[in-house]
Amino acid sequence: MKVKEVKGSICVVPSIEASAVYAGLTKKKLDVGLIYSKKPTVSAAVFTKNAIKAAPVIYDMALMKKLPDIRAVVVNSGNANACNSNGSEAVDAIVTKTAEKLGILKEQVFVASTGIIGEDLPYDKIVSALDNLTFTLSHNASGFAEAIMTTDTFKKEYALDCSFYGKQFHIGGVAKGAGMIHPNMATMLAFITTDINITHDMLDRALREAVNKSFNRISVDGDTSTNDTVFIMSTNEAPNEKIENENEIYRFFTDQLTQLCNNLAKMIVKDGEGATKITEVVVVGAFSKKDAELIARSIANSLLVKTAIFGEDPNWGRIVDAIGYSQAYFSINRMKVFIGDTLVFAYGRRADFDKTKVEAYMKNNEIKILVDLGIGVCTYNMWFSDLSYDYVKINAEYHT
Amino acid sequence: MKVKEVKGSICVVPSIEASAVYAGLTKKKLDVGLIYSKKPTVSAAVFTKNAIKAAPVIYDMALMKKLPDIRAVVVNSGNANACNSNGSEAVDAIVTKTAEKLGILKEQVFVASTGIIGEDLPYDKIVSALDNLTFTLSHNASGFAEAIMTTDTFKKEYALDCSFYGKQFHIGGVAKGAGMIHPNMATMLAFITTDINITHDMLDRALREAVNKSFNRISVDGDTSTNDTVFIMSTNEAPNEKIENENEIYRFFTDQLTQLCNNLAKMIVKDGEGATKITEVVVVGAFSKKDAELIARSIANSLLVKTAIFGEDPNWGRIVDAIGYSQAYFSINRMKVFIGDTLVFAYGRRADFDKTKVEAYMKNNEIKILVDLGIGVCTYNMWFSDLSYDYVKINAEYHT
Repeated sequence: MKVKEVKGSICVVPSIEASAVYAGLTKKKLDVGLIYSKKPTVSAAVFTKNAIKAAPVIYDMALMKKLPDIRAVVVNSGNANACNSNGSEAVDAIVTKTAEKLGILKEQVFVASTGIIGEDLPYDKIVSALDNLTFTLSHNASGFAEAIMTTDTFKKEYALDCSFYGKQFHIGGVAKGAGMIHPNMATMLAFITTDINITHDMLDRALREAVNKSFNRISVDGDTSTNDTVFIMSTNEAPNEKIENENEIYRFFTDQLTQLCNNLAKMIVKDGEGATKITEVVVVGAFSKKDAELIARSIANSLLVKTAIFGEDPNWGRIVDAIGYSQAYFSINRMKVFIGDTLVFAYGRRADFDKTKVEAYMKNNEIKILVDLGIGVCTYNMWFSDLSYDYVKINAEYHT
Repeated sequence: MKVKEVKGSICVVPSIEASAVYAGLTKKKLDVGLIYSKKPTVSAAVFTKNAIKAAPVIYDMALMKKLPDIRAVVVNSGNANACNSNGSEAVDAIVTKTAEKLGILKEQVFVASTGIIGEDLPYDKIVSALDNLTFTLSHNASGFAEAIMTTDTFKKEYALDCSFYGKQFHIGGVAKGAGMIHPNMATMLAFITTDINITHDMLDRALREAVNKSFNRISVDGDTSTNDTVFIMSTNEAPNEKIENENEIYRFFTDQLTQLCNNLAKMIVKDGEGATKITEVVVVGAFSKKDAELIARSIANSLLVKTAIFGEDPNWGRIVDAIGYSQAYFSINRMKVFIGDTLVFAYGRRADFDKTKVEAYMKNNEIKILVDLGIGVCTYNMWFSDLSYDYVKINAEYHT
């Protein structure tokens, strides 16, 4: 079994093409992208848990229930197509035109949007752009990665070349994130392609596991959006025997998919609005997984912890405080907290640590916080960004 | 029945005296304060819900169960006396010396601390200061209000002169807040005095109601601290017949106490670290009170809403988004959102409003957001601060 990180993203999968154009939805960058599969696919998706969903999410959720053979994915930035008056009309116009241009059925088109909420989507711009989008399809997904960006400052692409006992397959993905990134999926889009030979059911299961261990474990500001979507499709062209149950290759594939999602998720945290550092909080020794998760989320979402990390201060007091109000079950007398490798809190009080050493550690770009509750065997981890002046700047200056 | 706002705070109550000194716990301000009652009292207190509690909180919680006749309250800033190695030893030294100096019992002394977590409390400084503190007791509480401040930028004092069918009584309070202010009580201290004639049980009930409608409805940054305490004591000297049940004067007193707590709570929000504006979110028409509260808290704690308010942008999309992930029961098709008097969202989409007018409204120092869910009769309201550059500055530059 071999795994190799390779250049590129969704187009590392043969039969997958992509394109992007500037359609005038944003100020001056590619803003509509298209993914196209020349071959039939199986696919799966997970969506935002926000009770208020954008029109494309509502459309896709219904569509995915039909187990469609998705051949095209159309995504725009600049407008979320949510809470407006022409949402479903816009989706219908886009999928109709896409199907027509590609000679496929409307039910073979998946859609997604990201950007401002509440404005009507000027979908005629996207419809017009589809001429160009379908004409310029190629094996280069770099334009697509740009087209889905909003306040992102860099493209998020990742791809793996995998081999399972000589059977080669590929996984590639692009994502966008930046603001409003929270566990439970937040203004975050990710599109993943693969050619592994797998049934719809098993692909769906693999995606849910991978998302739970990656995109659902990151936090930028705790808000969840109306548009979050992670989509995967497989052309099933790889030479492996079709995965129909949780066998060894399923495990191998799911681990690699998790790895890919994790890398995209970490890029999202790194590109969190105004983020200067990425921190991993690992909780071990919890009585239940729920307790471990409560504590990890409480720390990851604490503004005081986030600002302390921005200020490069080993403020274990704020970490302990966040554990205290997490509602998780723990005993302060059995709990230990490490920053990096240094024990900073143990058994109810500050540990006797070398402050200069921990202060130097805080200057790293990646920080690790370990909480050992010492009362069980359950664990949870999360990645989160710090809170800087620029977070405030970006979000206060962004105007409707 | 008359109510008049008057100058001063805890010392508007006859028989209550206060003092403050600089004991060297902070850089250069009064940092230890004392309240003394020349008369016996009944008292009540509510404490932080954080599972990790500071030594004075643990001490006071046990003390209050004995229904003590509290005569003295000693408070220090600069050190939270939490998660350290000498917490209970420090509390014992302080109450012992206070009792000795004032000729009262140890069990008549209530203590509180605020400041940095995890450092040993240099309690000898407080013990030494008690000579001076007891010597300088007077009817001026202004020094005490300063002594409990940490990152607060102004003193928080409020007092009411009340008359119930000719029976006069007083209520006065001081508070400190600033960072880490969240519903459910956060690094927040408040000390309230009154002379109303009331039993312990009814005073306790009145305090809990007042706190639930005031201090528990404010949010600065969502963190709750290890030290939060709201304390009230009454000298019972007012000429009213002793309140022993929920009669008319109980109702009147509790309403005025709520009013006082609300004013102190709003001062805390206004002084939220880096706050430039104070916003009230009011949720009406909810199916249950819990739903109304979930939505109010979700909006009040949303960083995106807080930064939009700092940026003076009427970003109803972020409000709607926060409603969406609140976990509350609502229907987007029946819901309306107002900013000030302007309907900005109704029935699933942006309302047709005059953006210039709402943008002008956003320049006010007090903003109101009204959410009408249109499916019930339950309500909830909260006060919260915006999120500015200065919040990040204060919390990133604050070093352990």
